[in-house]
Amino acid sequence: MIVALDAMGGDHGASALVKGAVAAARDFGVQVALVGDPALLEEMLDAEAGKAKKGPSAPLPIEIVPATQVVAMDESPSEALRKKKDSSIQVAFDLVKKGRAHAVVSAGNSGATLATAMFTLGRIKGVRPAIGTLFPTLKEPSLMIDVGANVDCKPVHLLQFGIMGALFAQEVLKRPEPKIGILSIGEEGYKGNQQVKKAYDLLMKSDLNFVGNVEGRDFFKGDVDVVVCDGFVGNICLKLSEGLAEAILKMLKSELEGNLLATMGYGLARKAFKNFRKRVDYAEYGGAPLLGVKGVAIICHGSSGPKAVRNAIRVAGELAQIGLAQKLEEAMARSGRGARESFLKIL
Amino acid sequence: MIVALDAMGGDHGASALVKGAVAAARDFGVQVALVGDPALLEEMLDAEAGKAKKGPSAPLPIEIVPATQVVAMDESPSEALRKKKDSSIQVAFDLVKKGRAHAVVSAGNSGATLATAMFTLGRIKGVRPAIGTLFPTLKEPSLMIDVGANVDCKPVHLLQFGIMGALFAQEVLKRPEPKIGILSIGEEGYKGNQQVKKAYDLLMKSDLNFVGNVEGRDFFKGDVDVVVCDGFVGNICLKLSEGLAEAILKMLKSELEGNLLATMGYGLARKAFKNFRKRVDYAEYGGAPLLGVKGVAIICHGSSGPKAVRNAIRVAGELAQIGLAQKLEEAMARSGRGARESFLKIL
Repeated sequence: MIVALDAMGGDHGASALVKGAVAAARDFGVQVALVGDPALLEEMLDAEAGKAKKGPSAPLPIEIVPATQVVAMDESPSEALRKKKDSSIQVAFDLVKKGRAHAVVSAGNSGATLATAMFTLGRIKGVRPAIGTLFPTLKEPSLMIDVGANVDCKPVHLLQFGIMGALFAQEVLKRPEPKIGILSIGEEGYKGNQQVKKAYDLLMKSDLNFVGNVEGRDFFKGDVDVVVCDGFVGNICLKLSEGLAEAILKMLKSELEGNLLATMGYGLARKAFKNFRKRVDYAEYGGAPLLGVKGVAIICHGSSGPKAVRNAIRVAGELAQIGLAQKLEEAMARSGRGARESFLKIL
Repeated sequence: MIVALDAMGGDHGASALVKGAVAAARDFGVQVALVGDPALLEEMLDAEAGKAKKGPSAPLPIEIVPATQVVAMDESPSEALRKKKDSSIQVAFDLVKKGRAHAVVSAGNSGATLATAMFTLGRIKGVRPAIGTLFPTLKEPSLMIDVGANVDCKPVHLLQFGIMGALFAQEVLKRPEPKIGILSIGEEGYKGNQQVKKAYDLLMKSDLNFVGNVEGRDFFKGDVDVVVCDGFVGNICLKLSEGLAEAILKMLKSELEGNLLATMGYGLARKAFKNFRKRVDYAEYGGAPLLGVKGVAIICHGSSGPKAVRNAIRVAGELAQIGLAQKLEEAMARSGRGARESFLKIL
């Protein structure tokens, strides 16, 4: 499996991406196509591969594929798609389209990655592609889908997210009978807005192991494998969680510093914080898969460091290996008829 | 000012409520009407007032107003409204309606409190009442509005929430020129769903000090005084934040216990956690005001203890004192014409 990495995107520049690629190639043997400015990438790769080669390792399976343009982080996705035909994002997806690579990883402009994936790879028939993200919980991580690909959803889209999330949970998270819930404002099925109440009915009639509404309060308990929501709500939840976790750590640290860290074992407390951070670190999960396109694409946080990139490449390779996109296409075709029927009944 | 307290609602029973009432009467001199089962309340009040009287205090300004029915926490609000004409919630609002009290506080069934408030007090003309909640941030607390009264909102309702939130921030939080933001998925005004983008335009054209989109990630920084959102999204944010804060504390404590608390100053660390909890404790803010009805109503968390009830009674008294409901009515009337016009232009 060859993973095409958009080596020019992200907040930390190409260096973090090349480091991640080298780590993935070295640690997991994944083949990586680094897409971007060849001179720059060559130089960085030499420096990194040199370090990596100090051990008894074979040459790393990394190639460089040139792209002359870069999509800026704040550039309009539609404009990038139209005008930058040789951007690192576009070239990466072209590699998959031509069969020269099997998956794309990008930490660049996520709107542009999304648009380019949909346009170049195409959507699975009748499906709204959606972004899933793994959230840490008190138990195993849960998948929230969608976290930003669709800001205005119809109930049937939430059903599709449930079907795609269930397959991801089975195939990737290895949960044989994943529990699917829908994010709402009360446990009872009659609670929610119009969209969620209708989606609840659709999910209830589906073949999914649907467990009903999940409240925000219970989400982090980790009792549900997949939580379905529209992309606007999901994106807000994702960012609110990041912001809150950061704020809590800041507040708590300032309390601890006053009371404890100054007087007693600062090192030990730091270790506890570090372990905690590792536990809730999104980098461990390696980016967010875009489900519903005809191929594999992983969207990483713009601020992804080498570790997150390394893990995203690993996951991308795995998704390509198990043929997740094809399996999704089959699952959607199977459920398509049923979904359309219940959809018509309800709306 | 007399505050009518629904003394039968909440998860902890009447005892926590009576304790809160006694504390409010003693500490702030607020007059309280305890509404509920007279025999039960009399007994509890005697026990509590006895303790309170040990100091050199005058008799507490607390009266008991009988109500023969109680709305269960999971009862249907519309059914409660229809069938329980003598519930503690209904009697409390009747007291305000008759001018015998000036505000209501309830930790009972929040849907029933909401419905009874709207039905008994009435709505301010043309306004969708909304629930505001103070969130702790790294700076001063911010008001999020709506957190659950309206699960399906139109853009103009978000404008109304902004107007009501701004007045609350001025009058209660004492922020002369409150910054108003709208919760969305990116900083730029063109990001968001249809509802939010239209509300953005309405807010931009209003007289409010509107600062644009606020991302979930930035919410806890505390740079904005009032964050507007629809009640479905707001309720999810509220509960997600509660759930996440609890989960983080659990995870962090287990890390600290392994590394630090077991070996070193457990007491000091506990103190830090306690200070932290105080900082993020919703009880400090004393419940969530229902804005947009013709009167003062404060909805408390079902799990409110005496401290939260005490603070809610204090805030309810203050809101009645400054005549917030009347001021809101005036503000809405002033802005009504403008709001309607821009609404028609945009939709």
